[in-house]
Amino acid sequence: MAVELDPPPSVAELAERTATFVRDVVVPVEERSGGVAPDDAVRRDLQAAARAAGVFAPHVSAEFGGHGLDMRDRAVVFEEAGWSLFGPLACNIAAPDEGNMHLLEAVATAEQKERYLRPLAAGDLRSCFAMTEPAPGAGSDPAALITRAERVPGGWRIDGRKWFTTGADGAGFAICMARTSGAPGDRGGATMFLVDAANPGMRVLRHIETLDESLSGGHAEVAFDDCRVRADDVLGAVDEGYRYAQVRLDPARLTHCMRWLGLARRAQHIAVRRAAERELFGSTLADLGMAQAMIADNEIDIAASRGLIRQACWELDRGQPAAQSAAMAKVFTAEAVWRVVDRSLQLCGALGVSGDVLLGRFLREVRPFRIYDGPSETHRWAIAKRVVKAARR
Amino acid sequence: MAVELDPPPSVAELAERTATFVRDVVVPVEERSGGVAPDDAVRRDLQAAARAAGVFAPHVSAEFGGHGLDMRDRAVVFEEAGWSLFGPLACNIAAPDEGNMHLLEAVATAEQKERYLRPLAAGDLRSCFAMTEPAPGAGSDPAALITRAERVPGGWRIDGRKWFTTGADGAGFAICMARTSGAPGDRGGATMFLVDAANPGMRVLRHIETLDESLSGGHAEVAFDDCRVRADDVLGAVDEGYRYAQVRLDPARLTHCMRWLGLARRAQHIAVRRAAERELFGSTLADLGMAQAMIADNEIDIAASRGLIRQACWELDRGQPAAQSAAMAKVFTAEAVWRVVDRSLQLCGALGVSGDVLLGRFLREVRPFRIYDGPSETHRWAIAKRVVKAARR
Amino acid sequence: MAVELDPPPSVAELAERTATFVRDVVVPVEERSGGVAPDDAVRRDLQAAARAAGVFAPHVSAEFGGHGLDMRDRAVVFEEAGWSLFGPLACNIAAPDEGNMHLLEAVATAEQKERYLRPLAAGDLRSCFAMTEPAPGAGSDPAALITRAERVPGGWRIDGRKWFTTGADGAGFAICMARTSGAPGDRGGATMFLVDAANPGMRVLRHIETLDESLSGGHAEVAFDDCRVRADDVLGAVDEGYRYAQVRLDPARLTHCMRWLGLARRAQHIAVRRAAERELFGSTLADLGMAQAMIADNEIDIAASRGLIRQACWELDRGQPAAQSAAMAKVFTAEAVWRVVDRSLQLCGALGVSGDVLLGRFLREVRPFRIYDGPSETHRWAIAKRVVKAARR
Amino acid sequence: MAVELDPPPSVAELAERTATFVRDVVVPVEERSGGVAPDDAVRRDLQAAARAAGVFAPHVSAEFGGHGLDMRDRAVVFEEAGWSLFGPLACNIAAPDEGNMHLLEAVATAEQKERYLRPLAAGDLRSCFAMTEPAPGAGSDPAALITRAERVPGGWRIDGRKWFTTGADGAGFAICMARTSGAPGDRGGATMFLVDAANPGMRVLRHIETLDESLSGGHAEVAFDDCRVRADDVLGAVDEGYRYAQVRLDPARLTHCMRWLGLARRAQHIAVRRAAERELFGSTLADLGMAQAMIADNEIDIAASRGLIRQACWELDRGQPAAQSAAMAKVFTAEAVWRVVDRSLQLCGALGVSGDVLLGRFLREVRPFRIYDGPSETHRWAIAKRVVKAARR
Repeated sequence: MAVELDPPPSVAELAERTATFVRDVVVPVEERSGGVAPDDAVRRDLQAAARAAGVFAPHVSAEFGGHGLDMRDRAVVFEEAGWSLFGPLACNIAAPDEGNMHLLEAVATAEQKERYLRPLAAGDLRSCFAMTEPAPGAGSDPAALITRAERVPGGWRIDGRKWFTTGADGAGFAICMARTSGAPGDRGGATMFLVDAANPGMRVLRHIETLDESLSGGHAEVAFDDCRVRADDVLGAVDEGYRYAQVRLDPARLTHCMRWLGLARRAQHIAVRRAAERELFGSTLADLGMAQAMIADNEIDIAASRGLIRQACWELDRGQPAAQSAAMAKVFTAEAVWRVVDRSLQLCGALGVSGDVLLGRFLREVRPFRIYDGPSETHRWAIAKRVVKAARR
Repeated sequence: MAVELDPPPSVAELAERTATFVRDVVVPVEERSGGVAPDDAVRRDLQAAARAAGVFAPHVSAEFGGHGLDMRDRAVVFEEAGWSLFGPLACNIAAPDEGNMHLLEAVATAEQKERYLRPLAAGDLRSCFAMTEPAPGAGSDPAALITRAERVPGGWRIDGRKWFTTGADGAGFAICMARTSGAPGDRGGATMFLVDAANPGMRVLRHIETLDESLSGGHAEVAFDDCRVRADDVLGAVDEGYRYAQVRLDPARLTHCMRWLGLARRAQHIAVRRAAERELFGSTLADLGMAQAMIADNEIDIAASRGLIRQACWELDRGQPAAQSAAMAKVFTAEAVWRVVDRSLQLCGALGVSGDVLLGRFLREVRPFRIYDGPSETHRWAIAKRVVKAARR
Repeated sequence: MAVELDPPPSVAELAERTATFVRDVVVPVEERSGGVAPDDAVRRDLQAAARAAGVFAPHVSAEFGGHGLDMRDRAVVFEEAGWSLFGPLACNIAAPDEGNMHLLEAVATAEQKERYLRPLAAGDLRSCFAMTEPAPGAGSDPAALITRAERVPGGWRIDGRKWFTTGADGAGFAICMARTSGAPGDRGGATMFLVDAANPGMRVLRHIETLDESLSGGHAEVAFDDCRVRADDVLGAVDEGYRYAQVRLDPARLTHCMRWLGLARRAQHIAVRRAAERELFGSTLADLGMAQAMIADNEIDIAASRGLIRQACWELDRGQPAAQSAAMAKVFTAEAVWRVVDRSLQLCGALGVSGDVLLGRFLREVRPFRIYDGPSETHRWAIAKRVVKAARR
Repeated sequence: MAVELDPPPSVAELAERTATFVRDVVVPVEERSGGVAPDDAVRRDLQAAARAAGVFAPHVSAEFGGHGLDMRDRAVVFEEAGWSLFGPLACNIAAPDEGNMHLLEAVATAEQKERYLRPLAAGDLRSCFAMTEPAPGAGSDPAALITRAERVPGGWRIDGRKWFTTGADGAGFAICMARTSGAPGDRGGATMFLVDAANPGMRVLRHIETLDESLSGGHAEVAFDDCRVRADDVLGAVDEGYRYAQVRLDPARLTHCMRWLGLARRAQHIAVRRAAERELFGSTLADLGMAQAMIADNEIDIAASRGLIRQACWELDRGQPAAQSAAMAKVFTAEAVWRVVDRSLQLCGALGVSGDVLLGRFLREVRPFRIYDGPSETHRWAIAKRVVKAARR
C-alpha cells in the first residue's frame, strides 16, 4: 500500500463537525471567561452540547460511548478541538482525563472499567494522575519516585507527596504511582493504584498557583497519608507501573501536541485577521515584510508540527516503539506552538498583550508545555542517547 | 582622555546602596504581593524607606531633591533598582513618572515645575503620559495622531481617545499629546499639554486588562472630551510636541532597558541558585551541559545589553544624536531580557511556572516591552533605514 | 483509506538498494575527490555502476528506462541517493537533469522526447535549464524576464543573457525561457525553447565561481545571441512558459529537498560517530549535554523536513495545488539542512573544518540552497500572501 | 572619573589612517586574490606600504617600532584593519604573530626579544604557536597536552605531534608548548619553548586543508621528533606554560574578535550597498521588510560585539581577571560575525554565493572562529561554571 495522508472520510467528517461545534458553541464561552477554567456546571453544559453534536469522547471505544479513533485519527480531530482552550474539555478529551481513559482501556480489569472508565468516559466525573513529586522526587527523572506503597492486610498503604497533579481538586478518583520495591533512583519497582476521591488518606493540600489556569481542577499538591486501598485497586500488575506509564505517556504526549497545535492555529487566525485589517504606514500590516515573515513562520511551524505528530501516531498505531518519534514531536511542537503564539501576539501589538484578545492568555497556557510531560531538555537528552546508542551498534 | 568604563565612585556607592535597599526592603514586599502593583499606601511606605536610605529619585537634579545623575550614571543605579518589580517604584524612577520628570526638567516653565515636577519628584503624586491611541491612531506610527486640540478663548480644548496610558488611574496629572495642526499622518503639528487630574474633561474609561500587572495605575483607556486647559498649560512650544517626545523617548527607552536588565539579573540569580542546588540524574542541574548553556547565554545576554545601553547613554550625555544607538539598545535588550527570563523559568522546571517563584510573573511583565515604546519591528525598520540612508550618501 | 506512511514494499526495497549502492560505490569516489564535481568519465562510470545495481533514473517512466516513481516514492529513494554529493549524479537524478526529465515527460512532443528525453534518461548526455538572469532580470521575481524570442521565418530568434545556468558547460541541450510577449515585469508572456548545444547562437561565457562546486557543468553565464531555433523547438505552447515552469518548479523544489535531506543525514552520521568516540574532559563528547542538544536538534530537523516534504509530495501526486506546501517544505528544509550541517561540523571541532572530513565541503554545498530555487525570503513572502488572501475571503 | 567611551584623539586618528590604508591599498590586493593567503612577496609589499602609511605593528611598544596601544586602543584600530582579510597581515597584527609579539613582550628575556621579537615586529619573519594537538591531545581541553619535553644535557628534547599550527609553513620560529611534568589530563606541568625554524627536529608534515584559507602559512600538522633546544630557549619559567598561555589567550581571543568584527562590518557594507541599488518587485531590496530586518540585525550584532569586546579590554588593561568577559566576548562575537556574514550573503542572493563578491569567502573564513581558540560550547561551559561557583559562595 502506498503512502496516504488523508484520514478516512468518516474521520474527516467528525473533525469538521468538531471544528464547527468548537467555533459556534465553545469559543463564545471561552471568550466570556477569559480562558480561565470554567466551573463544573459550565463543564457539564459544554459536554452535554458536545454529546448532542456527536463530538463527545471520540477516542474511547464504542463500548464506552466513543468513536474508537486510533492515534492517527485523533490527530485530526483533537487538533480541531484544541482551537479553543475549552474545546478539549467540552469533547471530554482534555488532559489528564483523556490519557487516563486511554490507560484504563488498555490496562484496567473489567470491574475497574465499569467503576472508573465508564463514568469518566461519560463525563460524570473527572480524574487525575498523581505521578510528579516535588524535588527531589519523581519529575524529569521518573526513577526518583519517593512515594511508597506497603502491603497491608487486604491491600496497600500509600504514603507520599505529589504535586502538579492536574485536575486533582474535584476529581472522582486518582491514579497514583507509588514505589512498591527498590529505592528512589532505581528504575522499576513502581505500581499504579486507583484511589477513590472519597478515600480519607488522599487530600488536596493546595492549588499551586501557575502561569496556566485553563485546566479544570488546577494543578494541585496532594498528600497521601496512611492511604489504604484494596488489593483490587492495583491497576495492572504490581511493580509494572513504569511500563504502564509508558503506555500512557507517549500517546498522552502526542494528544497534548494535537490540542496545542489547534490553539496555535487559532492564534495565527487571530493574528492574520488583524494583520489583514490593520492600517499602518500607508499599507496594511499584512503587506509589511517583517509581518509576512512572522505569518509564514507560523504557518511552517504548524505544518511541521503536524508532520511530526502524524509520524509518531502512525508508529504507535502500528505497534512499533515510538518513544523517539513521540519525543521529537513533543519537543518540536511544544516549542513551535510557543513561537506561534508569541509571534501572533507580537503581530497584534499592544492589542496583543491586552485582554481584548486572548493571546496573552494563550501565551500563559502554552508556556508550561515546554516543561510538563518532560522538559525539552530531558527529551533532547533521551533523543540523543538513542541516536548515539544506535550509532555505537 | 582614554576609554573609562567605571562609574564615578559616588555613583558606584549609590548603586550599591540601592542594591542593598532593594534586596532588603523591597523584595520582601514584592514577593508577598506576587508582583502585582501595590496600592498607594504601600507605594508611599516604600518611597519613604527609599528616602530614608538616600536612594530616592536619584535622576532628578539636586534642586528637586535628587542626585542629578546623567544617563551613564542612571544606567548603573537603575539596573540595581530593577532587581525587583517594585524597586523603581520605591526609588521613584518607575515609568512613566521617571520619563515625565526628565521631560519636565528639560522643557517646563519655572511655574510648571513648581506645580508638577516638585510634587512628582517628591513622590506626592504620580503622573501619566497620554500619547498612544487605539488603532488607527498614534502607536507604532506616532504621526497617525488623531486627538486634536483647538484654540478656545483663554486656552485650548482637547478631544480624543488614548489607551495604554500607563498609570492614568490615580495620577495627579497627565501630559497629553494632541494635534494642533495638520491631519493624521502628517509629521509634525503636535503639542503637549499638562492636564490636571481634577479636570472634568479627562476621564479614565477602563483599566485595560494586560499580561503585565506590576505598574501602578495600570494601563488605562482615557477619554478627553471637551477638555479645557489654559494657555499656560502648554508644555514647551505649540506644534513642537514631536520634538519633545523625542527628548523624552530616547532616554525613556534606555531607562526601561536599565530597569528590565536588573530584573533579568534577578531571574538569572533565581535560576542559578536553583540549578546549584537541584539534584537530578545523579548530579546537580548546574553540572548538566544544557543547563550550563542556558546559564551562559543568560550571562552573555545581560552583558551585551549593558554594553549597548552604555553606548547609547554616552551619546545622549555628549549631546550627540542617539536615536540609532537607543533603538539598537531597546531592540536587543527587550529581546534579551525576554530570553533570559524564559531560560531562567525553564531552568526551574515545574517550579518555574508555579507561583512559588516569581519567574512566571516576570515573564508576563517583560513580554510587553518588546511592544511598548515601539515594537521591535518598528525599531528594526528605523535602524535599517538609517543605515541605508547613510550608505546612499 | 486510512493514513499510511510506509512506502510500497518495492519502493522500500529500491531505497535500500540505493542506500547500499551509494555507501559502497559512490562515497569512496566522492571522498577521494573532496566532493568537487567529477569529470564526465567518472560520471559515466558511476552511472554504469548504478545501472548495473538497478538504481538508475528511478523517477523516469518505464518507457524511458526508469521505475516510474511518483513524488512520494521519490522522497524515499532520492533521500538515500543524497547521502553522497555524487549519489544523485550516479543515479541520474541530479539537478537540473532530473527536473528537466520531469518537465519533458510532462510537456514534450513524442519527437522531442526521442531526441532529448531518451538520451538524457539514459545518461548519454546532460542538460541545463536557462531561466535565471543577472539583475535586473528574472531571479527572485521570474516576471522580470528580459531575454526575448522573436518570430523569424521557420522559427524563432533568441537574444539574452542567462546566469547560474547549472550544468550548462558540457550540456547536450538547454531549455531556455524567453519572453515572447509583453515586457519585463509582466506576468505571463514567456515561452520555453529546446536549444541544442551545437547551436552557434548559444555560448557559455564563463563558469561563475561559487561557494558550491559539486554539480557537473558548474553554474554558467550563458549568452544567447541571434540564436535561431525551429518552430518545432518550442517546448509546449507559445506564451505558456510560466505555467510549465510551475510544472517543473514545485517538484524540482521538493527533489532538491529530498537530496539535501540525505546529505544532512550523512552529516549527522559523521558527527554522531565522532561524538561517540571522542574522549573529552573525562567522558565521550556524546555524553556532554551541549553535544546531545545538537545531536537531538539535528534529528528533529531531519524528521520535520521529511514530514513537510511528504505532505507536499502527496498533494502533488493527488493533483492538488501544492505551491504552498512545496514552498513551506523548501524554506524549512533548506534552513534545517543548513543547521544540521553547521551543527555537525561544530560537533567535530577543528576536525570539522579540516578536509579530513567532508563537512566543510557539505557546508559550502548546502548554503546556496537557501537562495537557489527562490530565496527563503521570497518563499516566506509568497506563503504569507496566500495565508492572508485566504483569511480575507 | 566618569565613563568615557571615546578613544584618545591620537588613537582615533591612527584608526582612521588604518581604515584609509586598508580601503585604498589592501582591499584591491585582496579582491584580486579572492582572499586566499598571498605569498610572501605580497606580504612584504603590503607591510612596506603599511610602514610607509604609519600603520604598522601598532600594538608593539615604541622600543620595537610600534605605537604601544593598550587593549582598548587596539579594539579601535584592529577593527579597522579587519575590514579586509589581508588588513591584519599588512599591519603585522595578524594571528598568530600578533599574539606571539604580545607574549614575547610580556615574558621573553632581553636576549630572546632581540632574537625573535625584533624581527617579528619588523615583519622580517613570521612565527607560529604550536599548542593544539590532534585528539586525544590538547584542544578544547588544554590539560590533555601530550607532547613532552625531557631534560637533556644543556637543554631539552621535545617529542610530540601538533596540528592546526597556524602559519607554521614558512615561519621563522615556533613557540612550542610541551609537558615537562605530570601526565596528560593534569592541569599544570607545561613549558613553552622557542624553536628555531632551522631546527631539524621540527618538521611541517602537511598543510591541513581547511575551510578557511586566508592566513599565511596555513594550518599545519607539525612533528617534533628528538627536537633539541637549549636551556635558554625556555620561554619564561619551566612548568609555567599554562600561566603564559593565559597571558596570551585572553588578549588573543579579543584581538581575533576585533579583526573579525571589522570583516563583519565589511560584509554589511557590501550587502547594504547592494540592497540600496537592487531593484526588485517594484522597489529596492532595501525597502523590503525582511531585508530591513537583516540589515538591522547585522547592525545590532556589530554594536553588541563591540560593547562586549570593549568591556573585556578594559578589564585587561586594568589588570583585572578578565577570563569571564573575554569568553563572553569571544562566544558572542564569533557567532555574531557568522550571522552577519550569513545574512549579508543572503541579502545579495545568487550574487552572494558567487565569486563576484567576497561574501562566500568571508563565510568560509569566519566559520572556524566558532571553533578556534575554544569552541563556543567550551566557553559556555566555563562561563556557566564561574557563574555557579560565584552563586555557591
